[in-house]
Amino acid sequence: MLKVNPHYEKLPGSYLFAEIARRVKEYGQEHPDAQLIRLGIGDVTRPLAPAVVEAMEKAAREMGRAETFRGYGPDYGYDFLIQAILDNDYQGLGIQADEVFVSDGAKCDVANVQELFSDDAVVAVTDPVYPVYVDSNAMAGRAGSYAQDRWDRLCYLPCTAENGFVPPLPDRPVDVIYLCYPNNPTGTVLTKEQLKPFVDYAKANGAIIVYDAAYKAFITSGAPRSIYEVEGAKDVAIECCSYSKTAGFTGTRCGFMVIPHGVKGIGGQGQPVELNAMWKRRMGSKFNGVSYPIQRAAEAVYSKDGWAQCMENIRYYLRNAQVIREGLEKAGYTVFGGVDAPYIWMKTPEGMGSWDFFDLLLNRYHVVGTPGAGFGPCGEGYLRLTAFNTLEKTQEAVERIVHG
Amino acid sequence: MLKVNPHYEKLPGSYLFAEIARRVKEYGQEHPDAQLIRLGIGDVTRPLAPAVVEAMEKAAREMGRAETFRGYGPDYGYDFLIQAILDNDYQGLGIQADEVFVSDGAKCDVANVQELFSDDAVVAVTDPVYPVYVDSNAMAGRAGSYAQDRWDRLCYLPCTAENGFVPPLPDRPVDVIYLCYPNNPTGTVLTKEQLKPFVDYAKANGAIIVYDAAYKAFITSGAPRSIYEVEGAKDVAIECCSYSKTAGFTGTRCGFMVIPHGVKGIGGQGQPVELNAMWKRRMGSKFNGVSYPIQRAAEAVYSKDGWAQCMENIRYYLRNAQVIREGLEKAGYTVFGGVDAPYIWMKTPEGMGSWDFFDLLLNRYHVVGTPGAGFGPCGEGYLRLTAFNTLEKTQEAVERIVHG
Repeated sequence: MLKVNPHYEKLPGSYLFAEIARRVKEYGQEHPDAQLIRLGIGDVTRPLAPAVVEAMEKAAREMGRAETFRGYGPDYGYDFLIQAILDNDYQGLGIQADEVFVSDGAKCDVANVQELFSDDAVVAVTDPVYPVYVDSNAMAGRAGSYAQDRWDRLCYLPCTAENGFVPPLPDRPVDVIYLCYPNNPTGTVLTKEQLKPFVDYAKANGAIIVYDAAYKAFITSGAPRSIYEVEGAKDVAIECCSYSKTAGFTGTRCGFMVIPHGVKGIGGQGQPVELNAMWKRRMGSKFNGVSYPIQRAAEAVYSKDGWAQCMENIRYYLRNAQVIREGLEKAGYTVFGGVDAPYIWMKTPEGMGSWDFFDLLLNRYHVVGTPGAGFGPCGEGYLRLTAFNTLEKTQEAVERIVHG
Repeated sequence: MLKVNPHYEKLPGSYLFAEIARRVKEYGQEHPDAQLIRLGIGDVTRPLAPAVVEAMEKAAREMGRAETFRGYGPDYGYDFLIQAILDNDYQGLGIQADEVFVSDGAKCDVANVQELFSDDAVVAVTDPVYPVYVDSNAMAGRAGSYAQDRWDRLCYLPCTAENGFVPPLPDRPVDVIYLCYPNNPTGTVLTKEQLKPFVDYAKANGAIIVYDAAYKAFITSGAPRSIYEVEGAKDVAIECCSYSKTAGFTGTRCGFMVIPHGVKGIGGQGQPVELNAMWKRRMGSKFNGVSYPIQRAAEAVYSKDGWAQCMENIRYYLRNAQVIREGLEKAGYTVFGGVDAPYIWMKTPEGMGSWDFFDLLLNRYHVVGTPGAGFGPCGEGYLRLTAFNTLEKTQEAVERIVHG
């Protein structure tokens, strides 16, 4: 009899966004005239840049002619895209071509990278946290058992207003630390100086850092756009990036992961093992590369026109973030993020629970946010608002919350 | 200290195609004037169908306009594609929409599906075999240790000329059986009657079948195009399909997996667990759907024009297969496959080893094949030739082998 993976049973039931969708749908059915404004899910709304569309169309046509048709591409990505990544994302940081792996998105990468770790590796995550880091490790049995909103084998690093959203170092030995900056859900960043202790901790303890930089295009403050700006990070950090938010690729699907040769774990004989070599093996055995037209589209993000067009969209979203942040602040709310990220992390008023505040915003103002508690216990008492709606709707949502 | 996944160390070097490339390169350097003809790797060469290119271009343009832009798609695939799959691939077979999962290719699906099984599940594979089934299970520790071309926890089902390439049922209890028909590498098929014992075995033993139907578009003989044509299969079989060979999508990347609700394993409390529900959870947590323009391209495969154009390519490849098969047969060689598949499985003459015969074809005729031994011990004494080159080159390759 086939026994199934026993760890799936331990996963808590409903996924955050499914529960939100359920409540919103129910409210909509009971109040069909309500004009809901969605500042909940982190999906982009601006169309792809013209230069990107043009590149995709051109590549599609290439696929239709025998002379320019392309079959299986390289498992790790086409050279033209990897070179563009090196020239634009990693100039001066000393990353090599065979340290970059093109994928169909950062979600897959951050979910799959844990396959390289032993089952008993100890994992640290921030709290609140993007659920994929936790769920992918839980599915592999690495998170232990779930009770009272906590997995008993994970090490949680609380990030709250009290510590300025700067996670403390792990208080016990861990093997892997997941960090996401600009942060989802809090919208906050860490400076180079604040990241350095994590790199030092990893070096001192033989741990590695999985650094999710999916939102780096939103940075305006001078915070590092890559963990590799921090000295020593190339020996301990894997970095995940995505075109989803940089270039509106949430429905187009492309990203990449960087695994420098210096990042090593320990093999069965105690010998150092490059995670880069393991990931090559994993990609070669389980993946067949990203669609050629999509890789050409990603390459076009870096063209002069493409970049200008993408950054115009980023500025549009950042203006929305500013509207939310300043509007709510003026009205006396306490808010974080929104300067280097499309996310605003709003403190609920008067210590209200985050699901209660979610319901209040939905019922009274017809504005949909995301309850902070959905991202972990330390998200309780917060609500996430996103900057991905139109300027007009964003303005109206803030107006409703502020003036009722 | 981060310990790495210990099972990666057990993997033998993936030498097959690398070793072929090395020998071909070396020969080419020593004989720069040799006109090599490659009948080795299984990649398509005909361009995408015009209807497919048109659909991809149109969808790319949609992504460039605010009114028609699409962000995150459904994790399991767009309804329009799932409906096209139901109408075309599964008409009359009773498969439901929520049993179909669109992916970026069958390789990822067959590699990832093992995540649903417990670590101690016993896995059966045919010999010879497509390496992904083996490697993905080996990486999870389910294959045991590797020695003398065998993994000690896998159950091998030998397929040779002696048993007509019909695998025997497992001789000990197994939980999962991987089957691929039309078969890579042998090019042979099983009839419904030959598949039925596997379905019955699975039912009787609480096992499941992972059925790889990536080459089904090549079937001309009346062999089943889906395992679900076999009575009872919906209770025990998962089916993986791909547009790679059907529509030349090897560089475009789209496929799908079918997991009927009836397919169940056993949970921790001995209760039945639907693999469908587990896969939904897996896809929701680790995947973000397939690129919208690519899903539109896949949908266009099923359009009247698209289908006609794709089938013209299939006929082209099948004609090549016929050229190889008949040419070699006339010359006295023993060959299999090539009727329902783009692969011809050629018996080496006079019991020659498959690498020796590979070298002979390369050195004497400048034709590149794939040594059967690379697919498993029972592939020793065979060579795989593929039908994916041009008709002209295929004819010339056969001419060279037959007349020297």
